[in-house]
Amino acid sequence: MQDLSIPEAASHAILEAGRRMDRFGWVPATAGNISVRLGPDRVAITRSGRHKGFLDAAGVMQVDLAARPLDSNARPSAETGLHCGIYRRFPEAGAALHGHSVAATVLSRLAGDTLTLAGYELLKAFPGLPTHDATVAVPVLDNDQDIPRLQAEVERRWADMAVIPPGYLIRGHGVYVWAADMPAALARLEAFEFMLDCELALRRVRP
Amino acid sequence: MQDLSIPEAASHAILEAGRRMDRFGWVPATAGNISVRLGPDRVAITRSGRHKGFLDAAGVMQVDLAARPLDSNARPSAETGLHCGIYRRFPEAGAALHGHSVAATVLSRLAGDTLTLAGYELLKAFPGLPTHDATVAVPVLDNDQDIPRLQAEVERRWADMAVIPPGYLIRGHGVYVWAADMPAALARLEAFEFMLDCELALRRVRP
Amino acid sequence: MQDLSIPEAASHAILEAGRRMDRFGWVPATAGNISVRLGPDRVAITRSGRHKGFLDAAGVMQVDLAARPLDSNARPSAETGLHCGIYRRFPEAGAALHGHSVAATVLSRLAGDTLTLAGYELLKAFPGLPTHDATVAVPVLDNDQDIPRLQAEVERRWADMAVIPPGYLIRGHGVYVWAADMPAALARLEAFEFMLDCELALRRVRP
Amino acid sequence: MQDLSIPEAASHAILEAGRRMDRFGWVPATAGNISVRLGPDRVAITRSGRHKGFLDAAGVMQVDLAARPLDSNARPSAETGLHCGIYRRFPEAGAALHGHSVAATVLSRLAGDTLTLAGYELLKAFPGLPTHDATVAVPVLDNDQDIPRLQAEVERRWADMAVIPPGYLIRGHGVYVWAADMPAALARLEAFEFMLDCELALRRVRP
Repeated sequence: MQDLSIPEAASHAILEAGRRMDRFGWVPATAGNISVRLGPDRVAITRSGRHKGFLDAAGVMQVDLAARPLDSNARPSAETGLHCGIYRRFPEAGAALHGHSVAATVLSRLAGDTLTLAGYELLKAFPGLPTHDATVAVPVLDNDQDIPRLQAEVERRWADMAVIPPGYLIRGHGVYVWAADMPAALARLEAFEFMLDCELALRRVRP
Repeated sequence: MQDLSIPEAASHAILEAGRRMDRFGWVPATAGNISVRLGPDRVAITRSGRHKGFLDAAGVMQVDLAARPLDSNARPSAETGLHCGIYRRFPEAGAALHGHSVAATVLSRLAGDTLTLAGYELLKAFPGLPTHDATVAVPVLDNDQDIPRLQAEVERRWADMAVIPPGYLIRGHGVYVWAADMPAALARLEAFEFMLDCELALRRVRP
Repeated sequence: MQDLSIPEAASHAILEAGRRMDRFGWVPATAGNISVRLGPDRVAITRSGRHKGFLDAAGVMQVDLAARPLDSNARPSAETGLHCGIYRRFPEAGAALHGHSVAATVLSRLAGDTLTLAGYELLKAFPGLPTHDATVAVPVLDNDQDIPRLQAEVERRWADMAVIPPGYLIRGHGVYVWAADMPAALARLEAFEFMLDCELALRRVRP
Repeated sequence: MQDLSIPEAASHAILEAGRRMDRFGWVPATAGNISVRLGPDRVAITRSGRHKGFLDAAGVMQVDLAARPLDSNARPSAETGLHCGIYRRFPEAGAALHGHSVAATVLSRLAGDTLTLAGYELLKAFPGLPTHDATVAVPVLDNDQDIPRLQAEVERRWADMAVIPPGYLIRGHGVYVWAADMPAALARLEAFEFMLDCELALRRVRP
């Protein structure tokens, strides 16, 4: 018989990530969600409707890669389908974060269907970019409460790209990033949010 | 004989809410106030003139829904009448928060008699809105040191609305929000302040 | 024989005020200073050259109202003369704070010889103002490394005023506020900095 | 036989500096690095690829002034060469910090080959400047992943200056500062970042 309890290390990583994201104001109200891959078809993810800065172990549940609950009748967060889409498409992804910052919300509202980041040392946090001279075109998707339709649109965008950056924006809603494990995912989120803060500041100064 | 002591859970919820609001800079000086409904005609609310980030149990008192002190000769905060107005009008309201942020102060000074929020995922934090496509028109009231007159104006505005959003702004003064309980009220305040921060940022970027 | 040790309550109030000001970024590097009146001619004040966010009791010394060290050969901070000028002029002043915020620095550089604050609920934190409708004209002084000359200029400004607000700005340098005791001085500083943040935000938004 | 273990005081100073810089958002992702001079040809410095806000003693290594690892096969951070360049050129330098703030990133992108700071009280944190009336021209260097080439450019800039300010900016990348010891280096970094925040704010307000 399979043990389906969530490993304490995974649970701990999710709780600590929530507290860190809260410290920066990236998970206001009940926004944001956080997941860790537990196995080929098993993901630990934050439940719906909880504040991510004050999570306890009961705030984490398990789903399969089709976003179906594994261990309870708990309702997964609506955006669980987007996390699972990341894990299905990228076998190397071990953790995924959805943050909801002011900069991501505002810039995604001002952007077209991509947001271009260039000239930042922190672009080194994105894989496959040897130097800070690189340019990254981050996909920006229109918000949609129909998550399967939104995920299909994400996949359509990925299909068109030669190199897929490990993150995207949803308009008026926030950012998704992923990496091999939680520390790497958090570092990538910090790098991403930092560049978004810079972009917002650059658009505020007098020309 | 009725026990009129404040339940520890209510007192604790008020103190913790004050610390959280202080962390975000929403209760500068002695601004802001915080209340919890204790019964049909009984409310626990912060006293006048204390810093809401450093409250202890002695900083909380009880009033009836007409804003009269129940348990002491302590002076209630001037704005107690606004809290009681919320509890009288909305039987489902269990907690109310008045925050005093820079964004709320500045935007209420720039606004007319409503502030319109649209296109934010976090509008889901407002009841009766099925999707992020909804638009919420938040009432903005002129500041008035005569609280009964201000409360009468609030009620006049509510009377004109088909759906009443669970919050309003007072010009140059801050925001009021309410919800069924304190965690829900805090989440709603965070959602509201987040959208105000976004609105302020949007007005700062170059067109 | 007179006991000249600093009362622990006074020392504690100064240390805690430093930590609070550091939390908001108002005492960068070794900027800022903090004092408490101990008697008719005796003031406890932070020493020169220490970080105000990491003070211990050894970081506080005593001076008389002429800014002469009372209890050691420690060098008082250059701005001690400004604190003493406040205590000499206002017998009711029990604590004084000099903060060094971005908003105060930037606004004082943009201002003429006064900065006018109007329409803020938090103006209630300034004495003698019955309502938020009041207007306060805060003096702005040119910075001067010659502190006696700067203090003489402060006194010349005070001499011209019918009502003296309990604070002033030094251009490119920061804010001074005072009140009857430390909690009241901190509350007044928070109110002042809040309104400066609002003023800065108002000048950033599109007309 | 020489004891090559890192003195606990040096390790502690580096760890605490990392936490402080993280608190202000100056070391996002794995950005930033921190060093202390241990002897004439020996420097303790943060390793590559770690988050500077969560360092433990294992996150610190030793190099000689040519940036060669002394005590392990650990990979030094790429920018170690810039720290060593500071210690080689300035015998009085005891600690060096590289921060990666939004203000430094944005302003260095907008600047030419120098950024001029003038009129700030906190310029007193820079040596050799008797008053706040002084002007400091901070060098701004183009970013370069070839660190020896970048360091050569830094030295070329220093060779042209009558007085060398204890800091410089790398475009899109951040700030380097140094001082006699860690508390002085942190104070100088805070002063520098404060003035950069002011510069950014000044460029945002309406003329």
